[in-house]
Amino acid sequence: MKVKPAFKAESATVDQAAITPLPRSRKVYVTGSRPDIRVPFREIDQDDTPTAFGGEPNPPITVYDTSGPYTDPDATINIRQGLPALRARWIDERGDTQELPGPTSAFGRERLADPTLDAMRFELRRKPRRARPGANVTQMHYARRGIITPEMEFVAIRENLRREEYLESLRASGPDGEKLARRLTRQHPGQSFGASIPERITPEFVRDEIARGRAILPANINHPESEPMIIGRNFLVKINANIGNSALGSSIAEEVEKMTWAIRWGGDTVMDLSTGKNIHETREWILRNSPVPIGTVPIYQALEKVDGKAEELTWEIFRDTLIEQAEQGVDYFTIHAGVRLPFIPLTADRMTGIVSRGGSIMAKWCLAHHRESFIYEHFEDICEIMKAYDVAFSLGDGLRPGSTYDANDEAQFAELRTLGELTQVAWRHDVQVMVEGPGHVPMQMIRENMELQLEHCKEAPFYTLGPLTTDIAPGHDHITSGIGAALIGWYGTAMLCYVTPKEHLGLPNKKDVKDGIITYKIAAHAADLAKGHPGAAIRDNALSKARFEFRWEDQFNLGLDPDTAREFHDETLPKQSMKLAHFCSMCGPHFCSMKITQDVREYAARQGLDENAALQRGMQEKAVEFVQRGSRLYHET
Amino acid sequence: MKVKPAFKAESATVDQAAITPLPRSRKVYVTGSRPDIRVPFREIDQDDTPTAFGGEPNPPITVYDTSGPYTDPDATINIRQGLPALRARWIDERGDTQELPGPTSAFGRERLADPTLDAMRFELRRKPRRARPGANVTQMHYARRGIITPEMEFVAIRENLRREEYLESLRASGPDGEKLARRLTRQHPGQSFGASIPERITPEFVRDEIARGRAILPANINHPESEPMIIGRNFLVKINANIGNSALGSSIAEEVEKMTWAIRWGGDTVMDLSTGKNIHETREWILRNSPVPIGTVPIYQALEKVDGKAEELTWEIFRDTLIEQAEQGVDYFTIHAGVRLPFIPLTADRMTGIVSRGGSIMAKWCLAHHRESFIYEHFEDICEIMKAYDVAFSLGDGLRPGSTYDANDEAQFAELRTLGELTQVAWRHDVQVMVEGPGHVPMQMIRENMELQLEHCKEAPFYTLGPLTTDIAPGHDHITSGIGAALIGWYGTAMLCYVTPKEHLGLPNKKDVKDGIITYKIAAHAADLAKGHPGAAIRDNALSKARFEFRWEDQFNLGLDPDTAREFHDETLPKQSMKLAHFCSMCGPHFCSMKITQDVREYAARQGLDENAALQRGMQEKAVEFVQRGSRLYHET
Repeated sequence: MKVKPAFKAESATVDQAAITPLPRSRKVYVTGSRPDIRVPFREIDQDDTPTAFGGEPNPPITVYDTSGPYTDPDATINIRQGLPALRARWIDERGDTQELPGPTSAFGRERLADPTLDAMRFELRRKPRRARPGANVTQMHYARRGIITPEMEFVAIRENLRREEYLESLRASGPDGEKLARRLTRQHPGQSFGASIPERITPEFVRDEIARGRAILPANINHPESEPMIIGRNFLVKINANIGNSALGSSIAEEVEKMTWAIRWGGDTVMDLSTGKNIHETREWILRNSPVPIGTVPIYQALEKVDGKAEELTWEIFRDTLIEQAEQGVDYFTIHAGVRLPFIPLTADRMTGIVSRGGSIMAKWCLAHHRESFIYEHFEDICEIMKAYDVAFSLGDGLRPGSTYDANDEAQFAELRTLGELTQVAWRHDVQVMVEGPGHVPMQMIRENMELQLEHCKEAPFYTLGPLTTDIAPGHDHITSGIGAALIGWYGTAMLCYVTPKEHLGLPNKKDVKDGIITYKIAAHAADLAKGHPGAAIRDNALSKARFEFRWEDQFNLGLDPDTAREFHDETLPKQSMKLAHFCSMCGPHFCSMKITQDVREYAARQGLDENAALQRGMQEKAVEFVQRGSRLYHET
Repeated sequence: MKVKPAFKAESATVDQAAITPLPRSRKVYVTGSRPDIRVPFREIDQDDTPTAFGGEPNPPITVYDTSGPYTDPDATINIRQGLPALRARWIDERGDTQELPGPTSAFGRERLADPTLDAMRFELRRKPRRARPGANVTQMHYARRGIITPEMEFVAIRENLRREEYLESLRASGPDGEKLARRLTRQHPGQSFGASIPERITPEFVRDEIARGRAILPANINHPESEPMIIGRNFLVKINANIGNSALGSSIAEEVEKMTWAIRWGGDTVMDLSTGKNIHETREWILRNSPVPIGTVPIYQALEKVDGKAEELTWEIFRDTLIEQAEQGVDYFTIHAGVRLPFIPLTADRMTGIVSRGGSIMAKWCLAHHRESFIYEHFEDICEIMKAYDVAFSLGDGLRPGSTYDANDEAQFAELRTLGELTQVAWRHDVQVMVEGPGHVPMQMIRENMELQLEHCKEAPFYTLGPLTTDIAPGHDHITSGIGAALIGWYGTAMLCYVTPKEHLGLPNKKDVKDGIITYKIAAHAADLAKGHPGAAIRDNALSKARFEFRWEDQFNLGLDPDTAREFHDETLPKQSMKLAHFCSMCGPHFCSMKITQDVREYAARQGLDENAALQRGMQEKAVEFVQRGSRLYHET
């Protein structure tokens, strides 16, 4: 086992690889109804179409940007100070929270008082906040009272991806602007399985979706550094990246680095699943430096507090942990409240039993005490904590199948029905809820999961792990699960929890994190396209046009992973001139199908005829001219 | 550009990485009705279940094996001599072929007579064969006459994967054998979209499927080295790997190495898409060393013969190329006979025009001459060639979409309808046919492709490239397309053409070939599971059981890629003892969800009660005992 040297705050530096802007990308902000609503995007510049192919201008493309201030050259990044508290004023203005003198939780106070932790502790100058007595500070509570918060306006702007500005830029680009705009924003009709995605996202729509429980906006009042984002079936499909150390591996610095790395490539939220030492301190560093919502599984830490002895867990320890983490700013908690005593025996005939860590902890507790789960019994108490900080529930599927053999069994669906009931309970408290889903499910059984979730949980957002569509590819489970993720995203899942190539085998390193993220960005985007999410095809169309016009750099830069695309291209065609070449290494300089098509089109244009008309008139002379013009169409550059 | 030194036959050696048997795997053969029908499989040994978990025996698992003699330690591999001609006797016995004095094609004779090629030429001692005048030597022809060939019997045995032997081994494994057999072969019902997969594949079923055109058995009489395999919707989903050099890259040795590498990981067929120099010689080396069917796109070579000037192509040159390649032993030809003159203008408004190389060559020819495609016009002449050697058609989709924008357009479907007509023509000649499909298609539009193909092509096997479900991930298109491949395989595609991470960017190296293969093996297997292919879940179940029982080595070895799984595991838990450990690096030694479930089950068993009954009787003492027994369940090893 690797033993890491102790982490020291004074040595904390940002990973340079995480703060370099992506190639030809620019951070831009759209200001909302007030100057402090500044919604970040990434704008990717493109070259004009080569003159030989028409010389069209290609306006920049705007893409969703989860990377926060890290990729903003104007921002000063200092991870020892954390990110600016961009939501602090909004929270303060609502006047329903109070600053506390210090941490409320016994554990939080204990850690703060421990001088041996001084060297590794994030130096937080801010005090934790909590709802004033009797107040409810959830976004759902505001939404239900008809209030559009700055957070809601922020996500409305964010979800639209400056589509109207892009259209305008195309229209204004020249005499053929209108035609170009139609072409580059054209999209196939989707099949949305009952989703209700509007053409344009308005703040009011956001409010309404949150009020109905169909979407959540995770935004703990103690995580004012976060840039608001929304999770719901009628919005862009989101992805989550898990990070976290264990007793065996990785330090605080590595976890912070994984977080910045994950959001660089598109992680919409990050879950810190640490189970090793110094969980509290690790989490603080991550939160203070994270522009995306952070989720946790509090039972992991509670278990550490009882030295791994599940049967010694108590409601009091769990409660203290919830408060500890809520006051640090965790935005959503996975709570395995559906692992009820009567369901546990339903897993006895499974191939792989209970594979969820949280689920098995609770199963062990229930059996040891022969009692109903204390989490289930205290669910309303938990709601009280959640609404005092606006922590959202992620109702954990502790009985999810750990093999395709166990898919869709009674244990799994009994728990799902319970999660549906608990959703209703949470909603009575105006607490935001999403519901976690499997796991390992063969393709033909995925849709049933989505349909039952919609039915039992009344359209609360579904948040699924994969699902893995086969068990036979350890080392490649980002792919076995990416297939299932694309499918379930299409059917209606709101957020996809990534799976890395290391699943079942080890803890992911940075390469695995990136592989997992890119795979899941693909699955999420494939799902957006399939659902017919308005504007989803814009990036595909732009990239396809760049590809067709041999704009190699644009093809790389418009993709999800410009670095890898460029590297692969350069392996066979390394020289700069080759990135201007009208051919590629697959076919070589004498022969390229793209080039042939260009020639065919140009030829038709030069004749002043469209090919169809020409063909109909049977102009044999065309052929003669074409041959006379010179047969060699490919000129080496 | 890289310039390779000339390839020399005398230096040709086999890649050691391709001939080492996979870990704990053994080559086994099942003998058919005659001793020379020896069907290869790979048998993977497993450890017994640890005593603590019940001590069950775990009989070996049999998997489909495409690797040929390379992984047989009893075989002598010498790529300068090629593989044994295992089908030679069957071909000879049929008495409908004749040995030719030498190559019939002008080009074949020319190459043979060129002394400058002596050093690189594969030294073939065998003469080419052709059907006797008037004879038809296709497997379809035999099938339609009611003849079950040794090839058909071979594939019937192969497709069943020794399932009955496995069942028997489980039943005989101990007193709980019957229960274990039921458990380990249990499978969820599939959704097959109209496929007709029998419980057990018989030689007669194979014959019937080939006779109906619903399956093909590619088996050129000049490729007697090939191990028979079948492509059809009622059989296991197959995958193809493309290899091939271009003017810019890779030598003959590299291509042979890619072929052996591709079949090691599961390539069912290999297409040689070379476009550079020495195509003829490269192909000979590949064929003589390939135990899987080889496909080509003859128009690529024909184009080389006219120095890349598409308009100078003639039927005579194309015909000579077909004969040249048929006499070398190519098992299927991609023929872009559906790229008809009237369809070409339908591509004018596309985002990415014509992206198929073969399609664009033919489009260029048609426009240059303003004539109907000579391939289309000579289709029956081509059938005459095909049936003289048993080359199968792979009717190319020259007008497939090269972007999701262009998916399912009129150009694509006009061509598909033509391919349907040509399928009927080929079938009149008893020539085997599969039909190629797209391309780039968003998820919601994939099913239409499958349905129209079934309709127009009367269930001739569909052979699709991907499809890619989004355009925005260059560098990761094995994944964008793996998603689409799994879907279309589920819907009914018989063979999936892999896409590597280098797609659109460069030529795949060995790592890319493996990544592409593994991704497509996942897609094909996920499709088999979803269709409910009998026995498909056996490997999943065995692997899940190994995973649950902490049989790490078995978990690696039962997977598609044992090397990567082991490597990933060892990154965090390198020591040998850790592969015997009842925990993994995700959770560490003190805490593991799998272990907890085991404990829960053991506890119930020790009480002599099933948990359910115990719970119902409300045995509070259970809980007390459980705690008394000692709380620490995890013992460091």
